[in-house]
Amino acid sequence: MKAHIWVTLKPTVLDPQGQTIQQALVSLGHTNVRDVRQGKFFVVELNGTSREEARQQVERIARDVLANPVLEEFRYEIID
Amino acid sequence: MKAHIWVTLKPTVLDPQGQTIQQALVSLGHTNVRDVRQGKFFVVELNGTSREEARQQVERIARDVLANPVLEEFRYEIID
Repeated sequence: MKAHIWVTLKPTVLDPQGQTIQQALVSLGHTNVRDVRQGKFFVVELNGTSREEARQQVERIARDVLANPVLEEFRYEIID
Repeated sequence: MKAHIWVTLKPTVLDPQGQTIQQALVSLGHTNVRDVRQGKFFVVELNGTSREEARQQVERIARDVLANPVLEEFRYEIID
């Protein structure tokens, strides 16, 4: 089983890294770039589980290990 | 227009950060986690362009600014 996991800052949390990229893009001529937010993306491969077990395990991995629940939110997809 | 951009290491490039996460997950009891690869995920908002202009601009932004073409590859989607 393979899963894709996205970990992003909550919408209310300031993203200085994204702001820096936005300013850099504007200064490079991309003057219509209004906002940039940066997050993390993980591809996780699991041995031998059912789709439903994989779903539960990936949820635990994202919640307990990959995301900081104070500042971040996550979503995931089981791919195959 | 809003775009999602994924920047990931090329499959042939070693990912020590992903390996560290994989080992951490195994040590936390997720012994069936075979592989983890970490990438970056960006949400970019553009003012006033057509879908086709946005597509071309996001391609340039990803290729020239966000990704390192030696080590990384990218993909993107125009969302709305």
